[in-house]
Amino acid sequence: MATRTVDIRSDTVTKPTESMRVAMANADVDDDVLGRDPSCFRLENEVAKIMGKEAGLFVPSGTMGNLISVLVHCDIRGSEVILGDNSHIHIYELGGIATIGGVHPRTVRNNEDGTMDVDLIEAAIRDPKAELAYPTTRLICLENSHGNTGGRCLSVEYIERVGEVAKKHGLKLHIDGARIFNASVALGVPTDKLVRAADSVSVCLSKGLGAPVGSVIVGSNSFITKARRLRKTLGGGMRQVGVLCAAALVALQENVGKLESDHKNARFFADGLNKIKGLKVDISSVETNMVFIEIEESSGTTAAKICKDLEDYGILLLPIGSSRLRVVFHHQISNSDVKYALSCFQQAVSGGLNENGN
Amino acid sequence: MATRTVDIRSDTVTKPTESMRVAMANADVDDDVLGRDPSCFRLENEVAKIMGKEAGLFVPSGTMGNLISVLVHCDIRGSEVILGDNSHIHIYELGGIATIGGVHPRTVRNNEDGTMDVDLIEAAIRDPKAELAYPTTRLICLENSHGNTGGRCLSVEYIERVGEVAKKHGLKLHIDGARIFNASVALGVPTDKLVRAADSVSVCLSKGLGAPVGSVIVGSNSFITKARRLRKTLGGGMRQVGVLCAAALVALQENVGKLESDHKNARFFADGLNKIKGLKVDISSVETNMVFIEIEESSGTTAAKICKDLEDYGILLLPIGSSRLRVVFHHQISNSDVKYALSCFQQAVSGGLNENGN
Amino acid sequence: MATRTVDIRSDTVTKPTESMRVAMANADVDDDVLGRDPSCFRLENEVAKIMGKEAGLFVPSGTMGNLISVLVHCDIRGSEVILGDNSHIHIYELGGIATIGGVHPRTVRNNEDGTMDVDLIEAAIRDPKAELAYPTTRLICLENSHGNTGGRCLSVEYIERVGEVAKKHGLKLHIDGARIFNASVALGVPTDKLVRAADSVSVCLSKGLGAPVGSVIVGSNSFITKARRLRKTLGGGMRQVGVLCAAALVALQENVGKLESDHKNARFFADGLNKIKGLKVDISSVETNMVFIEIEESSGTTAAKICKDLEDYGILLLPIGSSRLRVVFHHQISNSDVKYALSCFQQAVSGGLNENGN
Amino acid sequence: MATRTVDIRSDTVTKPTESMRVAMANADVDDDVLGRDPSCFRLENEVAKIMGKEAGLFVPSGTMGNLISVLVHCDIRGSEVILGDNSHIHIYELGGIATIGGVHPRTVRNNEDGTMDVDLIEAAIRDPKAELAYPTTRLICLENSHGNTGGRCLSVEYIERVGEVAKKHGLKLHIDGARIFNASVALGVPTDKLVRAADSVSVCLSKGLGAPVGSVIVGSNSFITKARRLRKTLGGGMRQVGVLCAAALVALQENVGKLESDHKNARFFADGLNKIKGLKVDISSVETNMVFIEIEESSGTTAAKICKDLEDYGILLLPIGSSRLRVVFHHQISNSDVKYALSCFQQAVSGGLNENGN
Repeated sequence: MATRTVDIRSDTVTKPTESMRVAMANADVDDDVLGRDPSCFRLENEVAKIMGKEAGLFVPSGTMGNLISVLVHCDIRGSEVILGDNSHIHIYELGGIATIGGVHPRTVRNNEDGTMDVDLIEAAIRDPKAELAYPTTRLICLENSHGNTGGRCLSVEYIERVGEVAKKHGLKLHIDGARIFNASVALGVPTDKLVRAADSVSVCLSKGLGAPVGSVIVGSNSFITKARRLRKTLGGGMRQVGVLCAAALVALQENVGKLESDHKNARFFADGLNKIKGLKVDISSVETNMVFIEIEESSGTTAAKICKDLEDYGILLLPIGSSRLRVVFHHQISNSDVKYALSCFQQAVSGGLNENGN
Repeated sequence: MATRTVDIRSDTVTKPTESMRVAMANADVDDDVLGRDPSCFRLENEVAKIMGKEAGLFVPSGTMGNLISVLVHCDIRGSEVILGDNSHIHIYELGGIATIGGVHPRTVRNNEDGTMDVDLIEAAIRDPKAELAYPTTRLICLENSHGNTGGRCLSVEYIERVGEVAKKHGLKLHIDGARIFNASVALGVPTDKLVRAADSVSVCLSKGLGAPVGSVIVGSNSFITKARRLRKTLGGGMRQVGVLCAAALVALQENVGKLESDHKNARFFADGLNKIKGLKVDISSVETNMVFIEIEESSGTTAAKICKDLEDYGILLLPIGSSRLRVVFHHQISNSDVKYALSCFQQAVSGGLNENGN
Repeated sequence: MATRTVDIRSDTVTKPTESMRVAMANADVDDDVLGRDPSCFRLENEVAKIMGKEAGLFVPSGTMGNLISVLVHCDIRGSEVILGDNSHIHIYELGGIATIGGVHPRTVRNNEDGTMDVDLIEAAIRDPKAELAYPTTRLICLENSHGNTGGRCLSVEYIERVGEVAKKHGLKLHIDGARIFNASVALGVPTDKLVRAADSVSVCLSKGLGAPVGSVIVGSNSFITKARRLRKTLGGGMRQVGVLCAAALVALQENVGKLESDHKNARFFADGLNKIKGLKVDISSVETNMVFIEIEESSGTTAAKICKDLEDYGILLLPIGSSRLRVVFHHQISNSDVKYALSCFQQAVSGGLNENGN
Repeated sequence: MATRTVDIRSDTVTKPTESMRVAMANADVDDDVLGRDPSCFRLENEVAKIMGKEAGLFVPSGTMGNLISVLVHCDIRGSEVILGDNSHIHIYELGGIATIGGVHPRTVRNNEDGTMDVDLIEAAIRDPKAELAYPTTRLICLENSHGNTGGRCLSVEYIERVGEVAKKHGLKLHIDGARIFNASVALGVPTDKLVRAADSVSVCLSKGLGAPVGSVIVGSNSFITKARRLRKTLGGGMRQVGVLCAAALVALQENVGKLESDHKNARFFADGLNKIKGLKVDISSVETNMVFIEIEESSGTTAAKICKDLEDYGILLLPIGSSRLRVVFHHQISNSDVKYALSCFQQAVSGGLNENGN
């Protein structure tokens, strides 16, 4: 049994902090389905303000945030959405926009930096007047930072260009901002500026920010009115939800400032791994709190085996396929944890763990 | 401004108690999407045990509990569900089983006691082998206690008879148990016996039991496995959800025993209202914690006006149409509150409020 | 083996006449998906003109006509339609509006004459602004003549009253006019006047009119534009469909005038049946070409048995449940056939068929 | 006004031949919704036999054939289908599998020959047991010949390899055989052998074979039983549909043998075009009856302009984007027509039409 645990499977694994627990215990609440829960109201307004949008809506998960956003923008039968072929919505949300919402996804290739070529996006837009057999494109989705390409950031310039294409064709733009604060910090750009071109953003509070549960979607007042109805339809309306929102407000206040440190830990960790024979990290891809590790064939080991071996040392991480690992840093991983994890990796890959690795 | 507030709009309006707040603050939690949150795990098991089913799943709302249950039982395209024309699923859940799930609802008339005639249920079952133009009936839904008929209870005998019809035709039986504990207490029948015939039950913890958020659906292991996937699709999977489950566990332990008192308050209140000229309550319908009030034309007032007038005295309640009111009791309404509310009603309807009404 | 066949299962069983066959053989056609088939174009315009609407669209079946109409009027997710609990759309179209289109059906009881009480219709309309938990009513559906109540006719006055309710609440009105010509003839009212209040009508050409295949839906130009797209989505767009439309044009020209005779045959037949001990027809319900026959218990026989017995004499008809039969007349049933069928019924029910029954 | 018309927009534009018209006029028919139409029955059996499958079902269009096939194989909510990013189903069927059927499409890149790399197909298969966030892959779709890559053919070997992957993972394989006879003729392989690995095939009769309307889907008896129900749901059930089937039977008998000539015309035409400055055809892609023409920038003209200019000479064809044209040959285009079209092209592109071009 390991003497310490370093859980770097995801930034979703953080435990609520003491201040969050106090906030939950003291939360001012009401029935948010019948009326408005004051803590929820405060959180929604706060996130809307930070994102520069008119209104916000608390939802139980980022998946529901994206699902509602896509379905509100595509509320007419026969809608198509353009999104990245390696995006979270397309890969990790059970195809819900189609299986639940009947929205047809049209994918464009995600580049290694999480972008899609803007001309490919534009070429994918379909005008049903041109061809009876086409569905109607109504939405473009971006993801920032982009998880499946290692947490890389879309720049303001890129997003604005996509926004112009959307506007030109009368489409909406949604940003999956599960880790929008990471992108903001890494780029040194305020969040409101970063999402200015978007009609809606799904902002997760239970990833890097460490809230126990929840996301807030933001957009125009009319968008949020429709979203509230759809949230109720999906069963995402919750009663005294202020207990969760109070914790999320603490997360917003206390933890945005800690993301920079997570990013530093990620780069430190990546540099350290590159010194281990058999492992390889593309340093240029480490822009935020994620590190994707390639396991070279010469290492003689596999992703599954490394995960299993490291578990004995209390290091928890996730394999991606047979020769790749994903590591995600968060505010409950200290620099000391990073050093310990590095020493364990060295042990696991090359044999012979230094027990005082940290 | 009223000196006291008596919120009897619904049993969903309760605030978390001190013990729930302590439980939330101290909850043992983990990422319930990646693995299993221990508090959530405990709650799911506890509710499953109480209901006599194999497994449970925490969901953010009763609406999602019903939606998932119906969709899991009707997971094949072209399914039909038989349910009451006055049931919560049909009236108050935005038609989600059809608009989100593509399930065709076939309604049978709800009698005044919340039942549907068993022979009408059986006659509504459709066998697609008999007629190509028929959808395939796959599910029957009951609701216990039945909200829209005043919180009346379905007996074990009735439910078992419906269960036999379901079994005979190869259908599943789902019970919307938003207030199943109220029914159990009023009937003096253990919950597991009350739902024995059901393949699934949606059990609400944030109504009479007073938990801030959440329901648990229970059923067989294979039902819950499918339900977990669908919950994720809908966006109902939550991270450190144990903070909510810890409160719900307290609700289960502390508040089931208080329901009997809510029922007494309801009957006391109903008796009192019947002494007020212009108001009428069907006493025989007051089986649990709800009172439906008819406003007679002779009263010269309306539901909306009474609600508005009573708001000045801090009494919050909901109109149902123009000449009906609904009142719901819960553990945060004392007998003193009931007396105060009665005196305010007298004032609002006949003029001349006794300020020392309580 | 019977020496003659009298197929009165439905008015859908007619064979194309010689003139229809000639018309098909000589039809002027083109690719109706790529452009416009001239025969189809003519038929669509002709039906639109007869119904007093701007435009028409040929579809392969009445079921698709209704499905497209409902889905076009309810093209926004979260729509509800009000329709009769005994209507063809609700009972005999596999629940397609929900299972394929995600439209939530809200039924109102069909009276014995095929109407729904107008005040019940209005009470069923749901305004989502009044209650977050409500879907949005967008459409009312009527059926004229009303098949499941014996082909009874909705009057102009009734339809206009429903139309006013629809307009008052901003809803659309669709008429399932599978047998709208029968209603028009029976009521002595021109079809355009009969459907004036409707936003769309589904007009069947392969029932009483005897065309081999197809219906035409009519409505505004913008309705038809959306309908055309949806028809393509469902796979109802056909290539040189003019071969069918040419036959349908003949049906329109030659067979509307024969419906009166079908109605007379139905009444003659009903009168005759009422003289047979053990059978009973509600004469007041025989308004068009349908006869619903009750088999009294005293007859000692069943619907299934009568059908089987009559098959030996070449009489084909359909049972509805165990003690009811449905008979439908059409232009390929002569008065002599009716007399023959009556004599066979007498034989089948009371024993002893007069071989020269006609 | 042109003295002759050469309509090479598509092989769907053919007019019914004299023998088809005679067959329609004399077709033996019945109500195919109530029972079985004998001509329809014969056609369905004939196509099933040719394709080596148990049963067939006539549908009004290839789009419905594909829609039904995909939806039957993916009849459980939460299904994903793997298909080509340039396939007809994905591009030209309004996204119906998602917008109507809620099936999530996962695309794999179509190579220039219409194949998808088999290892990419296998990599795209998703096992929901591996990851809760994945939908369940249930189907792979191929298209043969592949329209959007110029009518190129998938070999038996390729299809069998894909079939093995499908079988290995418990998936079904559907082939969009809109032009399966063209593939069979071009490859010199019997159709039954060509589709042996498929669980279902959609076979179009109104493309190269020249029937006025319709496709037949084939598969196992249980597949067709489900397909029949879904056809009825979509409104694709037709009454005396034998009039269409009779024509289709003639098409099967008379026109399969003419496809070879269409292919020769295509190659002759392609060779001719390559001699015209400014036009370019990849000869290696001309495997069947389609020719895709690249308009070089040096030509100084555009696809739209060529189409417009050629229309004056009676040549009808379709632009694909701004610098590409698609031409499709069929049995009503003679070799003389081809020569005439070539001379018109020369005129339109380089100026100076030879009036005796043919």
